[in-house]
Amino acid sequence: MIGNGVVGILSESSNKWERRAPLTPYHCTRLLNSGKDKSGVSRIIVQPSTKRIHHDQLYEDVGCEISEDLSECGLILGIKKPKMEMILPDRAYAFFSHTHKAQKENMPLLDKILAERVSLYDYELISGDQGKRLFAFGKYAGRAVIIDLLHGLGQRYLSLGYSTPFLSLGVSYMYSSLAAAKAAVISVGEEIETQGLPAGICPLVFVFTGSGKASFAAQEIFKLLPHTFVDPIRLPELYEMASDLSHPSRTSKRVFQVYGCVVTCQDMVEKKDSTEVFDKADYYAHPENYNPVFHEKIAPYASVIVNCIYWEKRFPRLLSIKQLQDLKRKGFPLVGISDITCDIRGSLEVFNQTTTIDSPFFRYDPLNNSYHHDMEGDGIICSSVDNLPTEFAKEERLPNISET
Amino acid sequence: MIGNGVVGILSESSNKWERRAPLTPYHCTRLLNSGKDKSGVSRIIVQPSTKRIHHDQLYEDVGCEISEDLSECGLILGIKKPKMEMILPDRAYAFFSHTHKAQKENMPLLDKILAERVSLYDYELISGDQGKRLFAFGKYAGRAVIIDLLHGLGQRYLSLGYSTPFLSLGVSYMYSSLAAAKAAVISVGEEIETQGLPAGICPLVFVFTGSGKASFAAQEIFKLLPHTFVDPIRLPELYEMASDLSHPSRTSKRVFQVYGCVVTCQDMVEKKDSTEVFDKADYYAHPENYNPVFHEKIAPYASVIVNCIYWEKRFPRLLSIKQLQDLKRKGFPLVGISDITCDIRGSLEVFNQTTTIDSPFFRYDPLNNSYHHDMEGDGIICSSVDNLPTEFAKEERLPNISET
Repeated sequence: MIGNGVVGILSESSNKWERRAPLTPYHCTRLLNSGKDKSGVSRIIVQPSTKRIHHDQLYEDVGCEISEDLSECGLILGIKKPKMEMILPDRAYAFFSHTHKAQKENMPLLDKILAERVSLYDYELISGDQGKRLFAFGKYAGRAVIIDLLHGLGQRYLSLGYSTPFLSLGVSYMYSSLAAAKAAVISVGEEIETQGLPAGICPLVFVFTGSGKASFAAQEIFKLLPHTFVDPIRLPELYEMASDLSHPSRTSKRVFQVYGCVVTCQDMVEKKDSTEVFDKADYYAHPENYNPVFHEKIAPYASVIVNCIYWEKRFPRLLSIKQLQDLKRKGFPLVGISDITCDIRGSLEVFNQTTTIDSPFFRYDPLNNSYHHDMEGDGIICSSVDNLPTEFAKEERLPNISET
Repeated sequence: MIGNGVVGILSESSNKWERRAPLTPYHCTRLLNSGKDKSGVSRIIVQPSTKRIHHDQLYEDVGCEISEDLSECGLILGIKKPKMEMILPDRAYAFFSHTHKAQKENMPLLDKILAERVSLYDYELISGDQGKRLFAFGKYAGRAVIIDLLHGLGQRYLSLGYSTPFLSLGVSYMYSSLAAAKAAVISVGEEIETQGLPAGICPLVFVFTGSGKASFAAQEIFKLLPHTFVDPIRLPELYEMASDLSHPSRTSKRVFQVYGCVVTCQDMVEKKDSTEVFDKADYYAHPENYNPVFHEKIAPYASVIVNCIYWEKRFPRLLSIKQLQDLKRKGFPLVGISDITCDIRGSLEVFNQTTTIDSPFFRYDPLNNSYHHDMEGDGIICSSVDNLPTEFAKEERLPNISET
């Protein structure tokens, strides 16, 4: 069957929000029109779906067949894992299987794949010349995470008694395109620029961890607001300057911008008993020689933290529960944390769960060490949505497979 | 104190979402600039607020004073009822008191008002020459109710497995202005016009009850979508025509518009033992001579119901729980109901509660007669938000008091 030129597209069943498609109708046109000699594809059979962002008719229009039955297909494509009964013997499949770290919940799927002599192409493991992943989805996740966080801030600050322009922002999926979402953020930025933010919640400092694709994409959206980037070392100074503004007698004063601060591992740890210049290679080789300092040097000045940094257990945590509790006890301004890594009890110990697009935030009350599902009351709102990219279902897609 | 020319503006404390102001900074400029001789106003004292849509600085800039202390004010204005301790003796107050029907929860407030010899101007009771209310807030409520319903439909249809353009719409408060919200609805309309709706949920029929200001405003937003209005009597025919489209074998077909149907009391009831032409005056005088027919003639064809009609206990209900259960048992297409009247167990018996801006829908499962707070599972989503107008806080305001 493999290599028979018949490609199948699965209907997605893993999550109601999964509206992405592995091939768009445009991809299909190109594959079919360039002929089997060139593309290797003679037919494309699409499982019907009423929730795929490109609807069935569009696939039909470009010559695909619509059918639940993919038994004629040698290669079957999906985004997320299919239902077990859709794994047919002796075929090739491509999807995000989440099996290569031997994730427990997906082992039955892997067993089935092996039993059926299936060839599995896991997007996560397809890499180019320098071992670089070709199907990295970080950019849309980074954009969605910051838009959703800004939306959450609007609600959270309202609960704390502050009306802010962030209230005029929806969740990412509520925009028909990235351009529409950006336009809405720009409009929030204009409101900040003209009407300002209440001084009582300023300086509003967004801390971004990491310098990868996701962090960069989050910053790209952040930069649509009137902003200044601050060097991590200058955070105390910024805070000092602003403190007279937030004095109760000046509550009618407004602040017309937000602040960004990008931190990398040299701002998060310090070598024990040493004043040497930070050496990243040494840190990666011997993390046990380093003490965490994020909770002292960065976190006390952060209004929100957008965590986009890779982490393993051998590194110190970015922020432990205890550090978070100490911070809140001292009355620091942290109101929200978004974690793009979705590591449970990972670099941010507070995350004991991932969250969903329907309900993107939980509230953690450090003083009682309790978790809540509303926005009212004390604490910090925390978000860790594990399928962020589907919020931009139309734009988020695999690279055109005929181009690679 | 009354008539001393000093006006106070309360900070709103009834609900975190109440961001409206009785006087905008522009109103204040006009009142202060035209001089006490003309406007009767010499000073305006504004209680500080970090959530009022017009921030304190803007009031200061036009010459208002910012102070918690309103004791010098002869006339004190708010939107919703103030805290009990803000009722100072021998002054005039204006706000929505919700006391004139002797609403139980507000009787302590009324007692306090009487005890303090306060003159109360209740906006709801201020009327013009023909007894017409001058401060009717129906327009913004009507606009907000339909936008919020469209947003809810997007989520609900996704739960039912259908991706629709309604997903690209936020809740009203997520737009900085009515114009921005309208632009978003127009963009949803464009998507329906070009990409269509899944045939499985069509014909999508919006039933509007009543022909008042709120119903008209809801229709104004609805009309931004590609639509056809259908006479109530032609609903069965529309349904018949469309039924071949929704046949399972044609799921890839799309429908490029929605339908509207405006019903008034003549479509809701029928005179017992009579074939006379409907006489509204007779119905109002003798509702006991009439049988309800909405559940037979209209509801079986409605995808959503937007209820904007005045109702009293002496009239038949629009839809009882039992009728709703019968409808669902027969498999009719109703997915959502929005009730602008916020009558508990009123014309729509299903409403056993009002809902909030944070959580605008509950889900009612007719077959189990059970109420839920999520969007998943069987049933109908129902919304009855009692402070809708504040979703458009910037635009929603009292008429300029110096103009009346």
